[in-house]
Amino acid sequence: MTTPAQPRPLRIVLAPDSLKGSLPAAEAALAMSRGVTSAAARLGHPAPDVVLAPLADGGEGTLDALLAAWGVEPRTVACHDAAGRARTARYGITTGGNGSTAADAGTGTADDAAEDGVRGVLEAAEANGLPLVADLPLDALTATSFGVGEIATALLGDGAEEILLCIGGSATTDGGTGLLSALGARFLDADGDPLPPGGGALAALASIELDGLHPRARAARWRIAVDVDNPLCGPRGAAAVFGPQKGASPDDVAVLDHGLAHLARILRDLTGVDVLELPGAGAAGGLPAVLVALLGAEIVPGSALVADAVGLGAALADADLVLTGEGSFDAQSLGGKVVQAVVANAPAGCAVVAIAGRVQLTPAEVQDAGLAAAFSLATGPVRLEELMQDAGVLMEGAAAHVYGVFGAARTAAAQS
Amino acid sequence: MTTPAQPRPLRIVLAPDSLKGSLPAAEAALAMSRGVTSAAARLGHPAPDVVLAPLADGGEGTLDALLAAWGVEPRTVACHDAAGRARTARYGITTGGNGSTAADAGTGTADDAAEDGVRGVLEAAEANGLPLVADLPLDALTATSFGVGEIATALLGDGAEEILLCIGGSATTDGGTGLLSALGARFLDADGDPLPPGGGALAALASIELDGLHPRARAARWRIAVDVDNPLCGPRGAAAVFGPQKGASPDDVAVLDHGLAHLARILRDLTGVDVLELPGAGAAGGLPAVLVALLGAEIVPGSALVADAVGLGAALADADLVLTGEGSFDAQSLGGKVVQAVVANAPAGCAVVAIAGRVQLTPAEVQDAGLAAAFSLATGPVRLEELMQDAGVLMEGAAAHVYGVFGAARTAAAQS
Repeated sequence: MTTPAQPRPLRIVLAPDSLKGSLPAAEAALAMSRGVTSAAARLGHPAPDVVLAPLADGGEGTLDALLAAWGVEPRTVACHDAAGRARTARYGITTGGNGSTAADAGTGTADDAAEDGVRGVLEAAEANGLPLVADLPLDALTATSFGVGEIATALLGDGAEEILLCIGGSATTDGGTGLLSALGARFLDADGDPLPPGGGALAALASIELDGLHPRARAARWRIAVDVDNPLCGPRGAAAVFGPQKGASPDDVAVLDHGLAHLARILRDLTGVDVLELPGAGAAGGLPAVLVALLGAEIVPGSALVADAVGLGAALADADLVLTGEGSFDAQSLGGKVVQAVVANAPAGCAVVAIAGRVQLTPAEVQDAGLAAAFSLATGPVRLEELMQDAGVLMEGAAAHVYGVFGAARTAAAQS
Repeated sequence: MTTPAQPRPLRIVLAPDSLKGSLPAAEAALAMSRGVTSAAARLGHPAPDVVLAPLADGGEGTLDALLAAWGVEPRTVACHDAAGRARTARYGITTGGNGSTAADAGTGTADDAAEDGVRGVLEAAEANGLPLVADLPLDALTATSFGVGEIATALLGDGAEEILLCIGGSATTDGGTGLLSALGARFLDADGDPLPPGGGALAALASIELDGLHPRARAARWRIAVDVDNPLCGPRGAAAVFGPQKGASPDDVAVLDHGLAHLARILRDLTGVDVLELPGAGAAGGLPAVLVALLGAEIVPGSALVADAVGLGAALADADLVLTGEGSFDAQSLGGKVVQAVVANAPAGCAVVAIAGRVQLTPAEVQDAGLAAAFSLATGPVRLEELMQDAGVLMEGAAAHVYGVFGAARTAAAQS
């Protein structure tokens, strides 16, 4: 008997999206970690080097995913909702330098992001979200993103050098003027008086005064997670497409569309930056408009922004295997969603395996897209509700089985 | 850029049981082969060396599995059912030497079995099966295994040197006396007259005459696939446990039990072999009794017998991966079923992965039992009927995904 060579520990990155309605991304990653680690122990393999990198697509759950990836607790700030009522919003910020650790002892986190500077993340919907004002008659003309600016102000106050904005689900169509007002900008009419809140007043905008702007607002790097390419105005614009669901009548839509176009002209005259045709500027009631024009914000696909924020590229650089996943793995998954971001960041030689509640692609579609495989959580005939209810345990199990195959192959290869 | 070393082709053995009611073992193995081969091509891996070794547990489907594994067509023989009516039975025999090829061009078969000599297989139920006499009033006292002996005679006539008997589902309780009668033995009463057919007459047995026995009957090696450990007689015996489902009244059971015990005494006196307490001798109406005592037959767990018959051990000797599977992978699977036989035959360094309609074991149970992993055919929420209907395509897909993980791991290892 010869003693087989001890293979180096496998490096496994766990980078799932959330399974909507059943398993947040951070819990999915932890379940995967339990599965992988316990399987390796059972099979007598060296404990793998496991990295938790829960992801998100810039929409709901992104804040929680980044909190988990950065290993930090959420902070809170007093702010206002789209109707101006007081509330408390959560946000996240890296502690700077290193020191982030996952709640799950013994596993690493992809905390490379923090090394670039202090990063903050806010979900705009924590302030201007549509669900927060669902109890009121919707007023699309006066709804304001001021509260989002209050969160941003808190982030700047905490030292954030880069701010990631996740802006889906908003109740506002004010072109981001409310947000900038909270940061100290003043949007004035021809008499030099401040405009009232909301997009309905934008047609009266005559000038923008930036003297009072937060002293660190322009120095910060602003990145906006956007997953639509709608422009600010016109038939595919913020008012026409998203206004009605925010309570805008046809007349309101016309007023808002006109106001946003006017805002774009004022911004262009002031800064030279034209956001009128900018793809994505129509997201969240035009919120990117002033951020791009006045603060140099960048519009980024949500999953790519999150992948960058958790340091996915660095985490994957020397990984052997990355497990990703989501609720339904289908054609959309390969069009800019989390799975696509994982594939894009995985180097040659790193196998990408997806675990999903439902796999709707053929093996050929999965493997031609650059994944090694995709597995369902299902262990047999099952109803959707059961699958969602047991998602955590099933995710742990699926990861254990995937590890079993991968680990057996690598261990045997190392010993042959 | 260096040119990565070309890894040797992976050797993958495909050794599933049937998925009862949806996918015969041979079709399951072919579906696995398609999945594995197409995945390797898609992923740019060297084409794996694929070996088809469909298995069975000695029950229904065993004949078909061995026909597929040996790459031979079924032969037929005129015989009689348990009620004495003419019918045609199928059986299988290796062609001897080599030359067996699978229907699927380009893939090998586990034909090592043939190298040991000419092997034949019969399913007793092709002659004495209970379903074949379901149209008649059941008569447990006269039902005879004579037809099974007719198949065995055909096998000996074709040159079989080893005969594998699969004996489940019988309508008979004659201790195998019918079978031996067809081979030329004579079971006589005190007057020297032949007994009438069936176990009901055994109490009158006075002597057994073997002068007319088929000249090659004793030279052949007889192996009986048995998955129960019931003894010939008594409360756990052939008559008491299995008699009622064959139409035996309580009085009939007593007659049959007495007859079988008497048979065992006569056999012991004649041969010195006592089958009275032999575990498994009570299977199929005591059919093993005369075979063991008079022809030296061996009782073998069904899945082990089939594994041996398809040359599983040799096929697995230098395999990297073996895919097995069945309809439901549960605790029974690890108690002498096909999956257990695969695990028992897999050498260290060969990963065993099960693919089943339903996986009812935890990852810990799966991996502690010596498998690397187990996956369901399900790709999401699904009803049992859908799973069964699509089993072939789903098996191909599952094998493609398992290959994806395994192949990616090995290819990366070979290039690192």
